[in-house]
Amino acid sequence: MAATAANRRVILKDYVEGYPQEEHMELLPATEVPLRLTSDDPPGSVLVRNLYLSCDPYMRPKMSRPVRASYTAAFVPGSVITGYGVARVVDSADPRLSPGDLVWGITGWEDYSVVKPPVTAFLSKISHGADGGVPLSYYTGILGMPGLTAYVGFHEICAPKAGETVFVSAASGAVGQLVGQFARLAGCRVVGSAGSAEKVELLKTKFGFHDAFNYKEEPDLAAALARCFPEGIDIYFENVGGAMLDAVLLNMRVHGRIAVCGLISQYNLKDGEKDAVRNLFAVIAKRLKLQGFIEPDHKHLYPKYEEWVLPYIRDGTIAYVEDVAEGLENAPKALIGLFHGRNVGKQLVRIAADDE
Amino acid sequence: MAATAANRRVILKDYVEGYPQEEHMELLPATEVPLRLTSDDPPGSVLVRNLYLSCDPYMRPKMSRPVRASYTAAFVPGSVITGYGVARVVDSADPRLSPGDLVWGITGWEDYSVVKPPVTAFLSKISHGADGGVPLSYYTGILGMPGLTAYVGFHEICAPKAGETVFVSAASGAVGQLVGQFARLAGCRVVGSAGSAEKVELLKTKFGFHDAFNYKEEPDLAAALARCFPEGIDIYFENVGGAMLDAVLLNMRVHGRIAVCGLISQYNLKDGEKDAVRNLFAVIAKRLKLQGFIEPDHKHLYPKYEEWVLPYIRDGTIAYVEDVAEGLENAPKALIGLFHGRNVGKQLVRIAADDE
Repeated sequence: MAATAANRRVILKDYVEGYPQEEHMELLPATEVPLRLTSDDPPGSVLVRNLYLSCDPYMRPKMSRPVRASYTAAFVPGSVITGYGVARVVDSADPRLSPGDLVWGITGWEDYSVVKPPVTAFLSKISHGADGGVPLSYYTGILGMPGLTAYVGFHEICAPKAGETVFVSAASGAVGQLVGQFARLAGCRVVGSAGSAEKVELLKTKFGFHDAFNYKEEPDLAAALARCFPEGIDIYFENVGGAMLDAVLLNMRVHGRIAVCGLISQYNLKDGEKDAVRNLFAVIAKRLKLQGFIEPDHKHLYPKYEEWVLPYIRDGTIAYVEDVAEGLENAPKALIGLFHGRNVGKQLVRIAADDE
Repeated sequence: MAATAANRRVILKDYVEGYPQEEHMELLPATEVPLRLTSDDPPGSVLVRNLYLSCDPYMRPKMSRPVRASYTAAFVPGSVITGYGVARVVDSADPRLSPGDLVWGITGWEDYSVVKPPVTAFLSKISHGADGGVPLSYYTGILGMPGLTAYVGFHEICAPKAGETVFVSAASGAVGQLVGQFARLAGCRVVGSAGSAEKVELLKTKFGFHDAFNYKEEPDLAAALARCFPEGIDIYFENVGGAMLDAVLLNMRVHGRIAVCGLISQYNLKDGEKDAVRNLFAVIAKRLKLQGFIEPDHKHLYPKYEEWVLPYIRDGTIAYVEDVAEGLENAPKALIGLFHGRNVGKQLVRIAADDE
């Protein structure tokens, strides 16, 4: 093994207002880094080779100048961007991880990362992995944060009952495509919205949504929902916010539940420009529950989720579509594309081969 | 007993847009009505003499032209206004009620009402009543719908823990004054907002709020809340909506709960003019739960609530302030006053003496 390797890094150059552009990020020229931990690294650190990086909507709020506490600290201009990924352990001072182990969790947008203790707060060992018949990249999605997000949001927050109606926005995305399929498996009638004819087709064919519509082609979202849900919506899995939420509120049924997972339509708007939500009287009139949640609060459910979902992946009951960009140099563009709906399915970036 | 009596009625003349005015309602000239049930009344009806009528914010949405299903049907122009009240049974074809019994529940804005079956869906017998040391009028408030509303919203929806912080808007109203006192009894730190110096004083002295502010005198509601809650708000009891909700969202703590009871600031605005709520990202960032509720869904908890609250009323632990208008002819003005904050405490109308 070489004593050093070339390490490229993607940093955030400055805080972003509005839509992120490629010039907000920068791929720094490679530097040589040691291929083992050094005395500079805190005791208990782990050195990993990053293989896949995940592009997730929650990363956008972290790119804004921090004005108030959020659930996740803002990125630091000049520092490497961090996010979910899949990696291979190169050197470990944590007894629970050994060189060669595959892990998923929070890592850096760079070829090699030193993950500082408490390492298990950031990284989970992959027990199934590439040789379990499941692509390793799935640990950025269906077997990672988005998968547990979909499971917790749908099953724990919304408590679905067979026969109920479910609406999912951003339904072809990493989380949405799973919620749709979980809903179908739960015996619900599920409808999704997406932003292109291609995605709508994917919802109806590949993911088994009972119906779907292209929100960009609907002059009246409330009317589109009324058409798809003549009896109203029992469960809304909220990924977009803004005008869609306002339209959904008018179409909810009594005692409906809304899992508030993401508000991607709002992330690139400045504070004073956020879309107005005006139909909140429906929350009383229909006795609705809206509940926000984030995956890290529910980590303890991961083993239960993994055990439940793996057989469905292996036997093809649940389909999963990824949009894979190649190379660290294309990571910024891939992340930016999320906010324009350019991805079809889960957006991730492959920065090294599985066996590298 | 006279065979007939004079009956006056208040009707809604036409649907209301904006703030209700006295001309939207009309006190009809008295007509003679029989003082017993007749063959025109459905079997199982009950004839009552109304004693107290309640003015409640939820009545305003019922005055609007119905555009969509609400939790409660709109009033019918030309028909008598209905609402909560306290009454004495005059004649009964329901075996559970006898002449002389006192009842509270849904009745009409008129001297005498025939309550049609299923009577027990509308009226509850008062077992404690005037001779139990508790004013009969309290069954329009602390011992009626507003009381159970405060109890359910605070204890069931918000699940308070001692030491948590609680904010109540419209805090001197029928529901708000109770939530504040329930919060104090639960060991919480509670702050209220109201619309006059007199009401703010009442909150701090009579009702034992730890702090209070006049929202009309605060140029920046979010700053006022940050001042009162330097560590943030665990529980918000929502009575007003609009700008207050938007400010509260910025000040909630992680895992906060919002019981959505009323949105009185929005009831007199037309559909397109409702205040914009823009800070909903806080729902995710802070993993908030917002839950709408209405008292009729929780009727089964009334006996538990009554048993809990009666000793506190009798020993003075819980204070209760009413604003009593005199005479059916003043009922429209009293109801209208609610929407301008003219009432101090629970607004009701006495239309006959307790022993009438």
